[in-house]
Formats: sequence, C-alpha cells, structure tokens
Amino acid sequence: MTVAQKFARLGTDHAPGQEVRQSASADFLIGDVLPGQPVDFSHGDVDAHDPTPGAFQLFAEGVAKGGAQAYTEYRGDIGIREGLADRLAAFTGAAVDARDGLIVTPGTQGALFLAVAATVARGDKVAIVRPDYFANRKLVEFFEGEIIPVALSYDTAVAGEAGLDLSGLEAAFKAGARVFLFSNPNNPAGVVYSADEIARIARLAARHDATVIVDQLYSRLLFSGVSYTHLRAEADLPANVVTIMGPSKTESLSGYRLGVAFGAPQIIARMEKLQAIVSLRAAGYAQAVLRCWFAEPEGWMEDRIARHQAIRDDLVAAFRQIPGCTVRQPQAGSYLFPRLPPLAIAPLQFIRALRLQAGVVVTPGTEFSPDAGDSIRLNFSQDHGAALAAVQRIATLTQRYRA
Amino acid sequence: MTVAQKFARLGTDHAPGQEVRQSASADFLIGDVLPGQPVDFSHGDVDAHDPTPGAFQLFAEGVAKGGAQAYTEYRGDIGIREGLADRLAAFTGAAVDARDGLIVTPGTQGALFLAVAATVARGDKVAIVRPDYFANRKLVEFFEGEIIPVALSYDTAVAGEAGLDLSGLEAAFKAGARVFLFSNPNNPAGVVYSADEIARIARLAARHDATVIVDQLYSRLLFSGVSYTHLRAEADLPANVVTIMGPSKTESLSGYRLGVAFGAPQIIARMEKLQAIVSLRAAGYAQAVLRCWFAEPEGWMEDRIARHQAIRDDLVAAFRQIPGCTVRQPQAGSYLFPRLPPLAIAPLQFIRALRLQAGVVVTPGTEFSPDAGDSIRLNFSQDHGAALAAVQRIATLTQRYRA
Repeated sequence: MTVAQKFARLGTDHAPGQEVRQSASADFLIGDVLPGQPVDFSHGDVDAHDPTPGAFQLFAEGVAKGGAQAYTEYRGDIGIREGLADRLAAFTGAAVDARDGLIVTPGTQGALFLAVAATVARGDKVAIVRPDYFANRKLVEFFEGEIIPVALSYDTAVAGEAGLDLSGLEAAFKAGARVFLFSNPNNPAGVVYSADEIARIARLAARHDATVIVDQLYSRLLFSGVSYTHLRAEADLPANVVTIMGPSKTESLSGYRLGVAFGAPQIIARMEKLQAIVSLRAAGYAQAVLRCWFAEPEGWMEDRIARHQAIRDDLVAAFRQIPGCTVRQPQAGSYLFPRLPPLAIAPLQFIRALRLQAGVVVTPGTEFSPDAGDSIRLNFSQDHGAALAAVQRIATLTQRYRA
Repeated sequence: MTVAQKFARLGTDHAPGQEVRQSASADFLIGDVLPGQPVDFSHGDVDAHDPTPGAFQLFAEGVAKGGAQAYTEYRGDIGIREGLADRLAAFTGAAVDARDGLIVTPGTQGALFLAVAATVARGDKVAIVRPDYFANRKLVEFFEGEIIPVALSYDTAVAGEAGLDLSGLEAAFKAGARVFLFSNPNNPAGVVYSADEIARIARLAARHDATVIVDQLYSRLLFSGVSYTHLRAEADLPANVVTIMGPSKTESLSGYRLGVAFGAPQIIARMEKLQAIVSLRAAGYAQAVLRCWFAEPEGWMEDRIARHQAIRDDLVAAFRQIPGCTVRQPQAGSYLFPRLPPLAIAPLQFIRALRLQAGVVVTPGTEFSPDAGDSIRLNFSQDHGAALAAVQRIATLTQRYRA
C-alpha cells in the first residue's frame, strides 16, 4: 500500500473537533436558525465541571522541580508510576508492576496508538466491536491489519449485559484474530459489559492465546446500580492483556493530555520503544498532575457522578420524547448514542444542519460503525441546562427534517 | 515483517534518558570512582538555563481559559498558529500558511514521527545522513522504508561547509529515494550546512521530485560568525518541503513538549489525520506557551547564545587536550561529537564506565551512525562549571582505559 492509499483511508473530516475544517455547500437547509447557547457534544466541556482540586498546583510544582520532571524515562517518572501502580491495582483488583508493567502516554489516545502498534502488523487479524470508538478501527487500518467485526447489540441486549456477540468473537478467534480491542464502558453506547461477558471474553482469548487491549477510559464514571468487572482481574486470562485509562473528561483534566497503559510487561516494553520515536514521553511537567488521580477528596467523584447521572436522565427522557427516536440509557461514562427516526436528508447533512441551524455539534454514528448511520453520538459532560436546551433543538430539527 | 521482528530492530537501550533501565554486568571496570557533580549530557539541563520569561504564566492563562484551550483543532489552536506563522515566516524568510501549512505537535519528536509517517511507506527509499539524529533511521525502519545512507564528512569538510556528500545524495535520488530527511544544524556534530550545500540539496530534490524533511530544531542557537540558510526559502524547491522546529532546549521549554511542522499543505494535512489517532493533539494548555516563542525579550536569545558559546569553547578545548581525541567545533546547537582515541574496552563499556565511575552520561556514537563507534555525543546545554569538570573526568577515564 502506498502512503497516499494509506492516508486516503484515514479520514478525519467527521472526527470530533474537526468540524471547523468542513466547507461543503449547505443548500439543503430549510427554515430558520434556532436561538440558544451553542453546545459542542463532540467532546466534554471541561468548563462545565471543575477539574480535580489541586491539579494545577501539582503542575506548577512539576515546573518548579525543573529538569527532573521535564526529563523522565520515556515511560514516565518512576515515582509517579509507583504511586499510580498502587492506586490502579486497588481500583482494578489486580497487581500493577510499576517498573515494568506501566507506561504514561500523551493522552489515552497515545496509549491506544502504542498498544495497537505494539501488537498489530500488516495482515494480522484483529477483532473490533461494532459500534466502538472510531480510532480502534482506524488504528488497525493504519497498521494494515485485517478487521474482523464483532457485533454489539447494545439496543436489544437483556438488562445488565452489553450485548456482545460472544459466538461472533469466538468465530473471530477461530478465524485467526490475534488481538481483541474494545472499550468498556462502550464508546459510543455507554453500556458496561457484564461479569459474565468479561469472564467469557477472557476465557475465549486465553484459549486462543489472543492479546486483549481494553480501553477503560470511562470506567470510573459508573451510574447507580451498575457493577463493573475489570478484565485484568479475571482468573482465566491470556498472557497479554493491556488496560488503558487516563484522567480526562471524568476529571476535567483532558487539557493536560495524560494517559496510562498497564499490563503485560513485554507489550509495555514495546510501547516504550515506540514512544521513543513517536513523542519521546508524555509532557514532563504534566505528568505531575497524575499525583492527584485516584486521590481525589472524599465525595468528589460521587458528586461528579451524580451530576452526570442527572444530565443523563434528562437527556435520555428528552430523546425518548422525539417520535421514532430510541436510545438505550448509558450505564457509565458520558456518551449517549440515540437512533433517530428516518429523515428526508442524509445523516451527514442532518448533522451539518444541527451545527448550522441549532448551534449543536454531534458526531456521526458512522464514525463508530458503518451500520450506525441513523445514530448520533453526544458527550453529555456539559452544562446541564445548556445540554437539555440543545437536545430540545435537536428534537425540533428532527421534526423539521423528518422523512 | 511480524510485530516481533519490527520491535526487535527498534532498540532504545542506549537512547538518551533510558540508561536507568540497563542491568548488565560491570566486571570490566578498573580503578576508583571519580568524585564530582554528576552531569547527564544525554540531554540539556533545563535547570542550568532559565526558560523563556513568561512561559509558565502563559500556561496558567491557558488553564484559566479552560475548554477553548484544552480542545483545539488537532493541528493546534488557530490563534496560536496565526501568531506563529508570522514569526516563523520572518525567521525563515518564506511565507507560512497558518490555516493549512502548519501543525502543532507533542514535541519536535512528534512532528518528525508524523512527517515520516506521512511520506514513507513500506519499501520506499529514503536518503538518511550519517551521522544524523538516531530517530531518523529508526522511523524509516519502523515504517519499513529502505535507507540509503549519505555520508556527512563533518570532520574533514572545508571550513563553512557541513561536508555532505552531494554526489552521494544525487546517487540516492537516482536510485529512487523519494524522501530526504536531515537535521540542520546536524545532530550530533553541530555543523551547519552552507548556503551552497542547501541550494544544491534543494535543486537535486526538485529535479528528482523528492520530499525534503528538514529538522531545524537548533537553528536559532547559532554561534558567532555562522550564517544559516533556510532550505524552505530557496528559489528552486521541490513541491514537498516540511520544516520542523520547536521550543525546546534552546529555550529550556522542553518540559512542555511542543513542536511544529510547517510547509506543504498536503503533507501537513496527512500529518493531522495521523495525529488524530496517535495523540489527538499537543497538550491543549501547553500550546499556549508557544505565544512566547520567537517573542522573547530583546537581548534574551543573544545572552542565551553567548552562554552556550562560552561552554562550547571550554569543552572543545578540554577534549582537544586529550591525546588522540579530535572534535570539530560545533557551529550551532548544543551538541558536541568528539572522537575518542582507541580504548582497551568496547565503546559501550566505556560509556558505562563513564556513568558508573565518573557520574557522566553520554550517548554512544553508534546511535547516529554505525561507523561512529569511537565517538560520543554530549549535549552541552549544562551548568558551565559542572560540564567542564565532567569533561575533565572523561579525560581521566580516557587515559585509564586507553588501548
């Protein structure tokens, strides 16, 4: 494959945050612009929810520390890794090796890139969930791996299950998939895999000696009544499991761009080798902010979750009032993935109409699955009132452009 | 090539900053440990030279700005890009397109990675200078390109020239090299390409329609009497030129991890597409620090250069006093690349002896060229007195281990 072919597949025109670079005609629009405060649902609004107390102070202390904080091992400062390893072990229920089994990266995106690069070569088969975070698919494509899709029937699954097609996953492994990459909670649908689903994923991967990369970015933001199973704490596991997390939207710390990956030392070692030529290391001073992660004041995370749960409830109710619109209530994280009724314009046109006429940015469902053209993704980590008003404008435009 | 094969080639054991991960036997050591303040010449000491005034304040203002600074276009905040484009155009002598021809990356390493990824696919031939920055070679290897080495006779070149083998470069292009990647000033040797060398590189690349990626990281730190030619300002240029820079050791801002690439819009666009899955963007808040870059108080850079020139002069003199040691005086940047006399132990053993017995970390010459085993690289952006004392300890150990 030539470089030109490789990049032709790597579209970002509809990726979150890139809407400003679009410049197509908009002559399909009908009706007036709806007034209201603009809301960008393509990512969380870090201004709507305060960052973890003390984060900036830790950064300032990192700057004051100078060279020792600016230049760390490529995998991150050992002192910071040691503190993190203990707290991540307590959170996930399995030991974390601070020296050899943990790497700090520029954002969780950095961790995901390195993990895929460290495990997928040209022609390797990789099982990818549909729908799932769009970068999963793009990363496999970039490294010229072969995707074997596995369906997630999030909308028809029984209560308490995410809805993964486990026989599809087994078939993927039997067909030669060497890696299974998925997000839990699922991005975009916000569903959490059940204990049984996780146990069966672990057993299947172990039986077929496959690597599992699990993106647990939103696993701290669990709504009431939901229990979460950490795959890495399963008894029956494959040799190669890598877990990815980071302080991001949940903590309103995404502006520092920090992520971590932890698990199999041989994969972490490869990831560090590659980080050496990709970006050297996560920003030296920013690493210091990790000291406040999983070390928040008592009650702080509970309050953060309660506020998000209240927004979720109102937004889900508002979408369910739109005739023909369906949405599964997210169990964790801050993503909502409603399916819209049939429209008279194409999905991408409707998304442009939302931006131009309702001041609302959402991400097209097709970023997450080729079958999800009728869905849109919203990150509801927003100002509560502004988000609800914005969904009401989405409702108005859905009616306006209804088929 | 399997993933395992790919990573086996991607060694970082001797990369700067990774020495702490070594654990081999040291029974070849003779004699005592030399007292003195440890010096890590593998990178600059940001504590020895103050960062640009106002940098931390700009970061703090970025944090205060919140979401608008945390979430920028993947290629960076447009306001910051516009300011930068003007200043980079003034510095390099050719226009910079803020909207389409400039990207902000996590460090210059991030820019280099994206530029190579955007131009080199499996089997593509790439001309690489020997010696040159070690990541250049590793990046081409990672993307399975084919390296065509071009010699830089920095030690025997006539005064004012870097010593590039221009007929070798022409032969590389004739043999099918599609990309030429080099650093100017050269890392490790600190030599600057002459106006004639740059003009001929540009013409040769234009004639063969090759892409040129030029890493100008240290092009601001020019010592007295040196003139610098920006390739991108040449009249006769190929369509695809990308220039890489960043505020780093020169400004003592490397802890913020910022870099930029500017040039051909079609390559910058690819780089942004890839950045979307590699790290999304340079740390949002850190981008704000770019506002002080090329906007330093009057006289600040001149003072910074004078201090480095004084260190250079003393270190060069100290190395030249070691019998059998040769070193070309660097014209720019903060790297020194002395060639040591024949030793009784292997080069990597001597480098370990320096670390364990002299408290001195240097980078092996073989990181830069397979032919440079008898050379070591030092980043002399250090405390002046400590650096000079450390070179005197290197002299003592050179005598101790002399063949």
